[in-house]
Amino acid sequence: MRWGFMALAACIAAPVAAAPADWVAANQSKILAEYAELLAIPNVASDIPNIRRNADHIVGMMRTRGLSPRLLEGSGPTVPPAIYGEWKVPGAKRTLILYAHYDGQPVTPEDWKSTAPFEPKLLTARLDKGGKEIPLPSAGTKIDPDWRLYGRSASDDKAGVMAILSAVDALKAEGKRPAFNLKIFFEGEEEAGSPNLGDLLKRHKNMLQSDGWVIFDGPAHQTGAKQVVLGVRGVLSADIIVYGPSRPLHSGHYGNWAPNPAMMMSQLLASMKDDSGRVTVAGFYDDVTPLTAAEKAAVAAVPNGDAALKDDLFLGWTEGGKRPLIELTHEPSLNVDGVRSADVGEKARNVVPSTAMATIDMRLVAGNDHQRQFDKVVAHIRKQGYFVTDKDPTPNERRQHGKVAKVVKHGGYNAERTPLGHPLARDVAAAVRTVHADAVVLPSLGGSLPLYLLREGLSAPSVTLSLANHDNSQHAEDENLRLGNLWDAIGVAATVMTMGPVR
Amino acid sequence: MRWGFMALAACIAAPVAAAPADWVAANQSKILAEYAELLAIPNVASDIPNIRRNADHIVGMMRTRGLSPRLLEGSGPTVPPAIYGEWKVPGAKRTLILYAHYDGQPVTPEDWKSTAPFEPKLLTARLDKGGKEIPLPSAGTKIDPDWRLYGRSASDDKAGVMAILSAVDALKAEGKRPAFNLKIFFEGEEEAGSPNLGDLLKRHKNMLQSDGWVIFDGPAHQTGAKQVVLGVRGVLSADIIVYGPSRPLHSGHYGNWAPNPAMMMSQLLASMKDDSGRVTVAGFYDDVTPLTAAEKAAVAAVPNGDAALKDDLFLGWTEGGKRPLIELTHEPSLNVDGVRSADVGEKARNVVPSTAMATIDMRLVAGNDHQRQFDKVVAHIRKQGYFVTDKDPTPNERRQHGKVAKVVKHGGYNAERTPLGHPLARDVAAAVRTVHADAVVLPSLGGSLPLYLLREGLSAPSVTLSLANHDNSQHAEDENLRLGNLWDAIGVAATVMTMGPVR
Repeated sequence: MRWGFMALAACIAAPVAAAPADWVAANQSKILAEYAELLAIPNVASDIPNIRRNADHIVGMMRTRGLSPRLLEGSGPTVPPAIYGEWKVPGAKRTLILYAHYDGQPVTPEDWKSTAPFEPKLLTARLDKGGKEIPLPSAGTKIDPDWRLYGRSASDDKAGVMAILSAVDALKAEGKRPAFNLKIFFEGEEEAGSPNLGDLLKRHKNMLQSDGWVIFDGPAHQTGAKQVVLGVRGVLSADIIVYGPSRPLHSGHYGNWAPNPAMMMSQLLASMKDDSGRVTVAGFYDDVTPLTAAEKAAVAAVPNGDAALKDDLFLGWTEGGKRPLIELTHEPSLNVDGVRSADVGEKARNVVPSTAMATIDMRLVAGNDHQRQFDKVVAHIRKQGYFVTDKDPTPNERRQHGKVAKVVKHGGYNAERTPLGHPLARDVAAAVRTVHADAVVLPSLGGSLPLYLLREGLSAPSVTLSLANHDNSQHAEDENLRLGNLWDAIGVAATVMTMGPVR
Repeated sequence: MRWGFMALAACIAAPVAAAPADWVAANQSKILAEYAELLAIPNVASDIPNIRRNADHIVGMMRTRGLSPRLLEGSGPTVPPAIYGEWKVPGAKRTLILYAHYDGQPVTPEDWKSTAPFEPKLLTARLDKGGKEIPLPSAGTKIDPDWRLYGRSASDDKAGVMAILSAVDALKAEGKRPAFNLKIFFEGEEEAGSPNLGDLLKRHKNMLQSDGWVIFDGPAHQTGAKQVVLGVRGVLSADIIVYGPSRPLHSGHYGNWAPNPAMMMSQLLASMKDDSGRVTVAGFYDDVTPLTAAEKAAVAAVPNGDAALKDDLFLGWTEGGKRPLIELTHEPSLNVDGVRSADVGEKARNVVPSTAMATIDMRLVAGNDHQRQFDKVVAHIRKQGYFVTDKDPTPNERRQHGKVAKVVKHGGYNAERTPLGHPLARDVAAAVRTVHADAVVLPSLGGSLPLYLLREGLSAPSVTLSLANHDNSQHAEDENLRLGNLWDAIGVAATVMTMGPVR
């Protein structure tokens, strides 16, 4: 199905924009109370009982709104269900699906300084900028848009869930309806790499027919500009374990004779990148589909917020030889998520540790394949003299080989990109710009979503709206959402729901 | 004071040897029960309330034995006290001090597979060799010397405390007395690097006058041979922290632009050693006092147990280019005790971590100085482009410098060596060989004890007896003591107490 032009969408969407903002302004404390309740339910994808508590809770939120919710189950009870809802519009000739995910990244509670991950707390500012805890406001309290709500998934991505459902409220309050058949899809395992999403889309293919998906996920630009994103990088993770002695050994009696796995891991990781952060794995930058001239121009048009970002992050240098962040996020990457071997500081003992473990993630751009990219890294590890296995090595394997590495790939999917000129892209961009004239249009986000599945499984294009504050500490401790970004996201969602004519 | 010759000591000590072994055989279950009670008291040196519980408990054990115990306090209540006892022998013309330490290394309880660190358990064999838990034996039960007692400090070094006190029992039971004025000194902060020992020796200098110290600490040789050790390596530890962004960042949105401290730490540690394990820090092997011809001969005479050890430890290679362990422990070393940055495996998140931390230890031989050795490493870190500080860097320090490392030295003391020909060395070696003819005499142990303080502060020579099973997992999880090694240690302690004539 073809789409209207930017100009048309913009001129129809514009008058609608003010109204949701008014509704939001009048309902902030109510929205916050409902949101805090949702954030209090632990939502790590592997924690199935709590994931199902989230799903049931969201089904309840959608039922109240008349969205005919139901759970879309995968192959069994241990697969996090997706949540589906719909608002059918009589006479509408097109259908769009709005997406968010309700699961969040794992948590290490002892690292959180703001609050426990699932005890959401409101602060008057960013914690490291002097934010103080305040109670959730009662109705009528004046709410500062710079206040921040702390808790896992406050930004990523229950904010997407809350923005979409609140926009439905805003429309209903004003007696409006969407400009298309609205379907809603909330995923429950995005942060786990969406291992079951392809299967789940296949199982519920008929229900999920549409003309396109609009994804609510990711942060705004560092300058504060909202982002309309036409693609995402692919991603894969890998665990690497290297082995020293079968048990930790006294470093005085055995050190510098027994191989030290913490040192071996250091040498192995160090071999993967040069001093400037360039990945030295053979062929790592092969396979990349170059950006088109239009995409390059779009990248070049993005405001450069790097200096302010460096200042905020206390950084004295950056990888990539001073190239701007926005260029680097359009290339493949290799990142060390974490390293662990024995203990450090007060808990350190004078030992040769027995093992060392690292987790790495790799981001992929158009042209990369996740299995091929993983294979290059495995080949690199072999080139460093390692015997590579994907199982726990046997004692004899460890005795026979000088160096042994267990390398296990987790998840993995490829990048996805919707062309700049695609009608869905142009319509959404135009709608967002009616409320945020400075919105940025990006060929690809640095982050990842399994959007290739929508194209491959459902022949559907996708556009992503990234609206959370950029300094939200998503994926880390002290994740937070700036309230002004939530209010804006609700307005954007309502605007998108009513964009363009029903064709 | 001069000492007798080997032959003399040997011929007098020999007839005494059998008796303590008989007493031990008859009292094993009683010894074990008393020992398990001692091991159940947590003994990490920084845990002052429990350290004092240990000290009070040991004072009680010594009072029962008539050893006139008292606590030797340091500069204040937060300094772990030493415990002093004595058995004065009328007419004795010399005085020896027997030493052990009652504190243990820190513990990471979740890593222990055998038992909780302070809930000692008896197993029928080494845990990874199929050992099964059995109750502590009642009187009359036949006890297999290969059974193992698991718990923190079972070997290192409450075994020294127990061996000395049980040897006193053995002598008293047979109506014997030591061949010299016997003093006993149990330290309470050895595993913390003995930061207060020098001060403590000074405060109680008169009470601690002697003709020499015999140290009960450390493991037997890997072949099972008991070790008479004439020196120890020095040691120092250092914590290194390197910095990335001020908060963990989403690896997709910021990875490969924001510097990754886990990668920086890997590159930094990797720069410190080459592939063969040779330390590449400039000047690291300078300052070393070469072994004398006699010391070299003693090292060469030590049986080589490396092949069996490699097999037991699942090792396919060793550092140092296939040189034997015994040679490498007579050189300076640099060892990574542990590394930590963010999380790995199931707890990993796709982030650029904010910091990475490593703890290293360095062992020193005669000629090295701990401060000088530390300074060489700091110079090396600077050479890798780092701004080095010993405090938490300020935001501006982080912004101004490309790479920042906080490096903090912990403790540190130099090596100590008693000459091979020293009379104390020869007498103790001869006495031990009356009960263990295959005992090894070593110029230096790989491990460390602050024995230089005895020479510098008290002008006293020292000899160390290393008697625990070599595969005791000391300093690590699942520390254990083979019971046969405890029985032997009691016999050796009794033999040493009665060695030589009263001169």
